[in-house]
Amino acid sequence: MNPVKDNSCCLEVCFSPKLFPEILTKENFIVVLVDILRATTTICTAFENGVKAIIPVASAEEARLLKAQGYLVASEQDGKKLDFADFGNSAFSFTRELVEGKTLVYCTTNGTRALEGAKHSGQIVIGAFINISALTGWLVGKGKNVVILCSGWKNKFCLEDALFAGALSNRLLESGKFSTNCDSAHASIDLWNLAKPDILKYLEKAAHRHRLKRLGLDDVIPYSFTLDLTKVVPVFNGKKINMNEE
Amino acid sequence: MNPVKDNSCCLEVCFSPKLFPEILTKENFIVVLVDILRATTTICTAFENGVKAIIPVASAEEARLLKAQGYLVASEQDGKKLDFADFGNSAFSFTRELVEGKTLVYCTTNGTRALEGAKHSGQIVIGAFINISALTGWLVGKGKNVVILCSGWKNKFCLEDALFAGALSNRLLESGKFSTNCDSAHASIDLWNLAKPDILKYLEKAAHRHRLKRLGLDDVIPYSFTLDLTKVVPVFNGKKINMNEE
Repeated sequence: MNPVKDNSCCLEVCFSPKLFPEILTKENFIVVLVDILRATTTICTAFENGVKAIIPVASAEEARLLKAQGYLVASEQDGKKLDFADFGNSAFSFTRELVEGKTLVYCTTNGTRALEGAKHSGQIVIGAFINISALTGWLVGKGKNVVILCSGWKNKFCLEDALFAGALSNRLLESGKFSTNCDSAHASIDLWNLAKPDILKYLEKAAHRHRLKRLGLDDVIPYSFTLDLTKVVPVFNGKKINMNEE
Repeated sequence: MNPVKDNSCCLEVCFSPKLFPEILTKENFIVVLVDILRATTTICTAFENGVKAIIPVASAEEARLLKAQGYLVASEQDGKKLDFADFGNSAFSFTRELVEGKTLVYCTTNGTRALEGAKHSGQIVIGAFINISALTGWLVGKGKNVVILCSGWKNKFCLEDALFAGALSNRLLESGKFSTNCDSAHASIDLWNLAKPDILKYLEKAAHRHRLKRLGLDDVIPYSFTLDLTKVVPVFNGKKINMNEE
């Protein structure tokens, strides 16, 4: 148990955007948005490859309207790139050749739902296994309370986001700057400790892993669970996601 | 992983009443209501001791109105029995001498919130560690899909309800009659397997365990995590909880 210490920052984990209004942390906090398969992993990849900004949208219709305004657009349905779009949602599509210096629109239902719910709360930062050490350092430096918000799948709890919440919670608690009395944080840490000796084997039980496999989109899974491929810490300003300039 | 088999019943776990509308099971299902600390443990105790029926209410005001109509009433606030009530909410108050043959009103905010959310769905049955084997046998006999609904605490995920969900999920899957592709079910099973060698030690990290301790209400904890103290399987008919008469 990590009792909440008077002088430490509070850490809380939220397993679904629908539970975000129930969080106990009420002020001075940063939200870490998590959608490991695939939105937040893809967003970090795009920034590693030099994208200028990303505009997240929840529906293909919004994406189509922004395409008509000249934006590069990533949008897919049931694993197929939509006809009007420039990319699907796979991290592997966002190469430096295609995205460097550009502002692009990214259509993600689960991730955007979570962003919408959190955007009037605290500062929002993008979390993935591929940027976990850079993110940890950034959060420790900020000295604010942290809520890790799992996007889940259709508002449901999902294992892959919970595992990331556990991995990040572990690191924040180990920094000595955070403490928690959040049951979701404790549960996610225990799940992460179980999974980490062989993450891909553990993931065999995750429903979304099988959903992606059926759609032929699971090529991105080993990449999505690799630690520290990038040092980017993208932040959301309420409209766009930008590189953290601090 | 337990893939869903064509001829088996689906098992799903829901970590909060707020996530109940998101469940994937849409028909022919039984809801297992769980609020280990303390409502569902207390309700099973009352039926073991011969109570005739229990009317669950969410507020002290409703409890007070029913007291005026002559019911025995259990209602407390911040761990203290309210002045008009006959009992607090501890399982230890519901002795055979006091409850046998009576209909009583039980005020529980978290449990009633969950019942309200589920009552237009399937049949609702009351689950606790103290009736887990009887409940398992009853569910296996029914041959319907099962959703385990954790009451949580103020709509948040809580460890003690998740542990019960894992224990019950394990037993249902072991029966060979159920299968699941629900990430919450897999997570709860993993948490239960971690906790079961020493449940009370594991629970040291649960926030509600500390909340009850501060209120002097944690005497009920070892009892609440003891398996099979009763064979009762109480069911909710939309208004009252009764002994299962089948």
